[in-house]
Amino acid sequence: MSHIAGNNKPLLTRVRRIKGQAEALEKALQDGGDCVAVLQQIAAIRGAVNGLMNQVLADHIREHVGADALTPAQRQQEVEQLLTILQSYLK
Amino acid sequence: MSHIAGNNKPLLTRVRRIKGQAEALEKALQDGGDCVAVLQQIAAIRGAVNGLMNQVLADHIREHVGADALTPAQRQQEVEQLLTILQSYLK
Amino acid sequence: MSHIAGNNKPLLTRVRRIKGQAEALEKALQDGGDCVAVLQQIAAIRGAVNGLMNQVLADHIREHVGADALTPAQRQQEVEQLLTILQSYLK
Amino acid sequence: MSHIAGNNKPLLTRVRRIKGQAEALEKALQDGGDCVAVLQQIAAIRGAVNGLMNQVLADHIREHVGADALTPAQRQQEVEQLLTILQSYLK
Repeated sequence: MSHIAGNNKPLLTRVRRIKGQAEALEKALQDGGDCVAVLQQIAAIRGAVNGLMNQVLADHIREHVGADALTPAQRQQEVEQLLTILQSYLK
Repeated sequence: MSHIAGNNKPLLTRVRRIKGQAEALEKALQDGGDCVAVLQQIAAIRGAVNGLMNQVLADHIREHVGADALTPAQRQQEVEQLLTILQSYLK
Repeated sequence: MSHIAGNNKPLLTRVRRIKGQAEALEKALQDGGDCVAVLQQIAAIRGAVNGLMNQVLADHIREHVGADALTPAQRQQEVEQLLTILQSYLK
Repeated sequence: MSHIAGNNKPLLTRVRRIKGQAEALEKALQDGGDCVAVLQQIAAIRGAVNGLMNQVLADHIREHVGADALTPAQRQQEVEQLLTILQSYLK
């Protein structure tokens, strides 16, 4: 079972919070809300998405790149896949 | 009318897209999806939130900090408010 | 006198610190230093550069975009120039 | 030999470029340079530091976390060390 399937409760909690924040932001925009408040809501969503990303990335590194029973070839593939992901995050 | 109220259509489109991405991510997590695909979905949401942020920030700077008919005191208040927002975004 | 000229002492202090950090990093690399220590030195330089950036950006917004005696056309030009700078920083 | 010692030429080239950029920025500040040009120089240094960081991080992941001949305990230690480093970079 992938680490996502085996550990999705805390991740689902995080994603549902982000959904709720997006819904609240949608309402604020519909109501023509104050733009400083809107900018703060966006910063909060951004922080929540970064938190989710760090959690999934940490699980991925522990469960895949750090797995014990990998052949050298499998390990190298996991490492290169991680580096591709990190490049998109560390821009 | 605040620039949010007067220009919320493109902003609402962006927020609804983020909501849709969060819903798709929720489904992927429920299905125990592949974690590299999940990490790529999160990177896409992150990019969409940054895009929304840049759009609202640009509108805010043009409409508030750059407004013509402000007293020096009003202008200074707008500038300090902008600097507070930028500090949370430029960490 | 530009705000850079009138206020360059604190900025020069920051830049000289960054130069010193880069020299220390150069020495660590020549000595074949421990890579975790090298990664932490790089993170410290990154933090120092961000601090310098925030300082100059805040001065720029206060002194240029927030200046009192600007025509509407001059103000608009300052605003658009600021937005161009922010795009390169908020990627 | 650590991957830093064995591969420091390209890293030294990057660090010396950053030193040169810092020296040029120091001169621009001393001359009371144009602040938009100064902001662009800082953005360039920031990009160079990020490039150096990505290079050392990739080497570190390949050579340490992805090394073949590690015991499970050693591998777990390398993984946790990497996660600590990533937390400071992915803020």
